[in-house]
Amino acid sequence: MNLYSLLSSLKSDLKAIEEQMARAVEADLPLLRETSQHLLKAGGKRIRPILVLLSGKFGGQNPEAVHKVAVALELIHMASLVHDDVIDDADMRRGQLTVKSKWDNRIAMYTGDYIYAKALMVITELDNPRIHRILSGALVQMSLGEMEQIRDFFNVRQTVRRYLLRIRRKTALLIAISCELGAIAAGASPSVSSLLYRFGYNVGMAFQIADDILDLCGTKEILGKPPGSDLRQGNITLPVLYALQEEAVRGPLLERIAEIQKSGGEADSSAAVQLVRESGGIARAEALADKYVAKALKALAQLPDLPEKKNLEEIARFVVRRSY
Amino acid sequence: MNLYSLLSSLKSDLKAIEEQMARAVEADLPLLRETSQHLLKAGGKRIRPILVLLSGKFGGQNPEAVHKVAVALELIHMASLVHDDVIDDADMRRGQLTVKSKWDNRIAMYTGDYIYAKALMVITELDNPRIHRILSGALVQMSLGEMEQIRDFFNVRQTVRRYLLRIRRKTALLIAISCELGAIAAGASPSVSSLLYRFGYNVGMAFQIADDILDLCGTKEILGKPPGSDLRQGNITLPVLYALQEEAVRGPLLERIAEIQKSGGEADSSAAVQLVRESGGIARAEALADKYVAKALKALAQLPDLPEKKNLEEIARFVVRRSY
Repeated sequence: MNLYSLLSSLKSDLKAIEEQMARAVEADLPLLRETSQHLLKAGGKRIRPILVLLSGKFGGQNPEAVHKVAVALELIHMASLVHDDVIDDADMRRGQLTVKSKWDNRIAMYTGDYIYAKALMVITELDNPRIHRILSGALVQMSLGEMEQIRDFFNVRQTVRRYLLRIRRKTALLIAISCELGAIAAGASPSVSSLLYRFGYNVGMAFQIADDILDLCGTKEILGKPPGSDLRQGNITLPVLYALQEEAVRGPLLERIAEIQKSGGEADSSAAVQLVRESGGIARAEALADKYVAKALKALAQLPDLPEKKNLEEIARFVVRRSY
Repeated sequence: MNLYSLLSSLKSDLKAIEEQMARAVEADLPLLRETSQHLLKAGGKRIRPILVLLSGKFGGQNPEAVHKVAVALELIHMASLVHDDVIDDADMRRGQLTVKSKWDNRIAMYTGDYIYAKALMVITELDNPRIHRILSGALVQMSLGEMEQIRDFFNVRQTVRRYLLRIRRKTALLIAISCELGAIAAGASPSVSSLLYRFGYNVGMAFQIADDILDLCGTKEILGKPPGSDLRQGNITLPVLYALQEEAVRGPLLERIAEIQKSGGEADSSAAVQLVRESGGIARAEALADKYVAKALKALAQLPDLPEKKNLEEIARFVVRRSY
């Protein structure tokens, strides 16, 4: 599951960005160097930097600025993951120990704060107040999304609309501004950058829905952790909400979820996972993810014809690729 | 213990800043509104906004910008306190329940992230890249300082120099840039803003040393928690380091500290506190704090003669005022 193969054309850019990220978090503090390196080595799909780079091509200017945006946004993503792992009490991510489990919660929290601050420093090198404004606005929305997730833990009465608003803030916005800011940094016109924002927003929604499906349908090998971790922490995702709308499934699924909540997330979630898998919830969630991809491609179609459109289309299709 | 009496001249400015802070953290999310309001109501000395306002007088222009800087820096201070309370597992602050104890760690962490992001939004309204750069640089240093504090928990071999570097990052820098950015936002000359930076830096050092003394010598009433909380969490402060340099005190004090560490901070720290109080550590720490105040006043003396110099002098003397 990596996009590099899809995007050989960006290999050198991405290598430069990896190096810049490593330099950005180089701390004179051994402990911080270790935790940050650990996070960088854990890697990731680097979807945000890739989107920044591809979107930057629609402006065409100032590649250094585009690189800085890519570095900053991926660092912000990393920082948010470190904090999420504290919140979610997660020991594994991408098959690697999380900072909070390899070190502890305090160190994870401050590692997140540190990387976050470093990301802001990289952005301040741009001297572009508009980029600052868009970024800080998104950071506020992201923290609201995280808070909403906590508020809605084990809330089996939440609407699909509420779920969508939450993932919009939690995930889609950062991906949307990855495209938008990449274009702005490269000097693209407002119409181009807002089309790319819309592309990124819809890709981000599809991406999070697909990720929520994967948490239910994926194998331990793919996930690096047993399936159903969202349910174990009380995160009620789209397939579960759809499953709860089915008469036959609702009763037993509510019981399983209540058991998990009572056990403080210790209970085995596999029974609940099974119920959702056997329901129509997965297919309906997949269908909605595909709808967002279609919207993304519609925005893409209105952009000037550059070879990068093909790459962006591949990414939009990639995020909903069934790997289960 | 509040500065308002000292600074009646700023009352209306400070009222405006309180209102702006409340508006800044107004969230459409009831939970976040509650936690943020709880923090605002808990109040504080508002030393940073006061320093921003007074420093701004040395530029004299753009009061709105000065207010924004004051709001942003106090919000950043508030956000860092919320995170610190998670790290320190603190239940009380200023005699009030902390967010982490009234709600929980996860909510406290995201409340901090939210307020932090809101502070950045306020700053982005300034369109002043230089202010962004100085601020984000300070945020990096602050997170390093927090990390160093964790690294040095229960490290009884640390040097005084190391303690000073830590509080420089943890406390003095934010106070220093409160003065510097207040001046810059008001259009002061570089020489004036750097003198104010030096004033703030030295006040900040004196302030943290005084605060560390207070944690040992203060009463439960003043502190809102029993004295010795730094020792209970393993934070080895200046008076303790000085006390450890005394032949007669070192042995027994090391034993008490080792007991506290073994007990995971559960052990009563009053015996250790007593040993430090009876040592020369308090007086030596007070002397060093006074030295920093003297340096602050020296920087102040070089500033143009404005009535606000008197207020700044009062603040410098106030932070080391013995309230025990």
